[in-house]
Amino acid sequence: MRFNTIEWKNNSIRILDQRELPLKEIYLEIRTVKKLANSIKRLSIRGAPAIGIAAGYGVALSSFNSKSLEIKKAKIRILNDIEILRKTRPTAVNLFWALERMKEIVDEYKGREAKRLHHILFKEAKKIHKEDKELCRRIGKNGAQLIPSKANIMTHCNAGALATGGWGTALGVIYAAKKMRKTIHVYIGETRPLLQGARLTTWELWKNDVPVTLVVDSARATLLKEGRIDLIIVGADRIASNGDVANKIGTYPLALIAKRHRVDFYVAAPSTTFDLSIKSGAEIPIEERDEEEVKSFSRIITTPDSINVFNPAFDVTPNELITGIITEKGVLRKPFKKSIKRYINPNNVKTTE
Amino acid sequence: MRFNTIEWKNNSIRILDQRELPLKEIYLEIRTVKKLANSIKRLSIRGAPAIGIAAGYGVALSSFNSKSLEIKKAKIRILNDIEILRKTRPTAVNLFWALERMKEIVDEYKGREAKRLHHILFKEAKKIHKEDKELCRRIGKNGAQLIPSKANIMTHCNAGALATGGWGTALGVIYAAKKMRKTIHVYIGETRPLLQGARLTTWELWKNDVPVTLVVDSARATLLKEGRIDLIIVGADRIASNGDVANKIGTYPLALIAKRHRVDFYVAAPSTTFDLSIKSGAEIPIEERDEEEVKSFSRIITTPDSINVFNPAFDVTPNELITGIITEKGVLRKPFKKSIKRYINPNNVKTTE
Repeated sequence: MRFNTIEWKNNSIRILDQRELPLKEIYLEIRTVKKLANSIKRLSIRGAPAIGIAAGYGVALSSFNSKSLEIKKAKIRILNDIEILRKTRPTAVNLFWALERMKEIVDEYKGREAKRLHHILFKEAKKIHKEDKELCRRIGKNGAQLIPSKANIMTHCNAGALATGGWGTALGVIYAAKKMRKTIHVYIGETRPLLQGARLTTWELWKNDVPVTLVVDSARATLLKEGRIDLIIVGADRIASNGDVANKIGTYPLALIAKRHRVDFYVAAPSTTFDLSIKSGAEIPIEERDEEEVKSFSRIITTPDSINVFNPAFDVTPNELITGIITEKGVLRKPFKKSIKRYINPNNVKTTE
Repeated sequence: MRFNTIEWKNNSIRILDQRELPLKEIYLEIRTVKKLANSIKRLSIRGAPAIGIAAGYGVALSSFNSKSLEIKKAKIRILNDIEILRKTRPTAVNLFWALERMKEIVDEYKGREAKRLHHILFKEAKKIHKEDKELCRRIGKNGAQLIPSKANIMTHCNAGALATGGWGTALGVIYAAKKMRKTIHVYIGETRPLLQGARLTTWELWKNDVPVTLVVDSARATLLKEGRIDLIIVGADRIASNGDVANKIGTYPLALIAKRHRVDFYVAAPSTTFDLSIKSGAEIPIEERDEEEVKSFSRIITTPDSINVFNPAFDVTPNELITGIITEKGVLRKPFKKSIKRYINPNNVKTTE
């Protein structure tokens, strides 16, 4: 990749500010958990796996800032910061998974040196990041086999390098197929309200020399109706035990349209995005975001002020509309309840073999 | 209505500039056909019936500006202006219908006074406008009977007073239901790329005290899935003999989602929007508009410059997804081929009885 979505640098978390893309490539240096929490809420960093990585580094940062404290106080501060991070966004399960993984280390640490605890937490955060990169690589490899030698692929929102620690999930499959010299053209809906498709996916694909065509979200149905799409691959923010998938608003209608036109609809996600504690998508909390996202655009008002807005950030696609789920373990097929049970580790902690 | 979408005033066409809504209520005084053609192309005036009315007044304007010419030269100029107007937008059939109606008068005029020809054409343009108002009234009356006493109604784009010579087609039904003291709440997708839903329909409903909730187009599926919508009513830009409907991009996916969730999907349109010369929606020319509509917002760039854009302004909803077509003659039901043949006048010229 020709950019770094997130990295630990000079004892701070350095993130590419995705709010400024594609016009400006600005990096933020984050030195406090409060600032990180705001960056996650404001979507300077977003995408389920990347949020998980940010959370891991956030706990490492908390421990770095607590190094000079007495161990008991350091732990209290770190656990408090974990709670701050937990409250940033409700839907992507990777956030809770990463925080839980870091919290276990804090809970189990019996030593007396805060500096040593930081060292262990930092190592773990690095490991989460490195693992995610590897998960992306395997997802790409497993998914690329599904791609014809010439393919028009539709995706949604951004499930690429900007959303993960590696080259992405849905876009990872596309990059892997390109590496195998397959000819790929990507179609992307702009992904209102925050235009992750128009702003981020186009930019990322352009940086990586993948041809891309942008449409408004409503025009995706026309492309499918006209037979211009060979298959669809999207990412996921949380996948239930039965294979229901929460992903960016606009995923569910896309899956419905795909079914109508008999186009394969794949979800690409690492096992860290599965939530085996819930039976179905009905249990996934859907974040509702500020109405200003819909009522204005870059501070330009687009509606009368007095009207109501409903602004859910995600929707749930029922498992029956999904052809397969591309994971690092392979492509899971129906019945998903069975294949998920078989391949996905219930505690999801060990994601590398 | 508390605004005038279009009117003839001081020997010019006065239109409410819909590009400036909802922030500014600015009226344009149009004195040349060239300026009118630009206003139609740029969507200062839009909506199939309103475009038809504008075209009628446009021919009247052309004849006004030709009053002092010798009759032969006046006719040449008027026919030339008709061709200019004909090329403004390809999808809405009302444009061609109105121009044909005006052209017949020019062709059949045997007199020698250009001033007299203007007088006749002006009267006809006024008549088209007045008829449309009456068509809207009847559509509203016929449609209101379908509305429960309390209803959450979804619409798309703007098929209201801003799109017609009266109180609208889809919104006409809503205003008529409100007049009958039914309790209505409207849900509207913002209608990318030009946000007619967010900018125009919310503004119009707000002006008329109808409560409205705005969502991004992609979130409409969530509302339907959650059972929050009782029925859908949209307008139309052209309806084929078999009942296939061309309407603003995003109508077709909405109809698909409605079918999935068993929500009634109605189209409201006057007989002037039917095109009995074509068998199905496949024959309707779909306008593709400038890519800048998708690549930027109020001059703020949202994508890398080098990417491709596909920007169809309309889509076609197949007849099978439509519950009924609300016209001034009544609510047409399936099979549409039969009901359309029975109720819609093939030359569509006489729209009032």
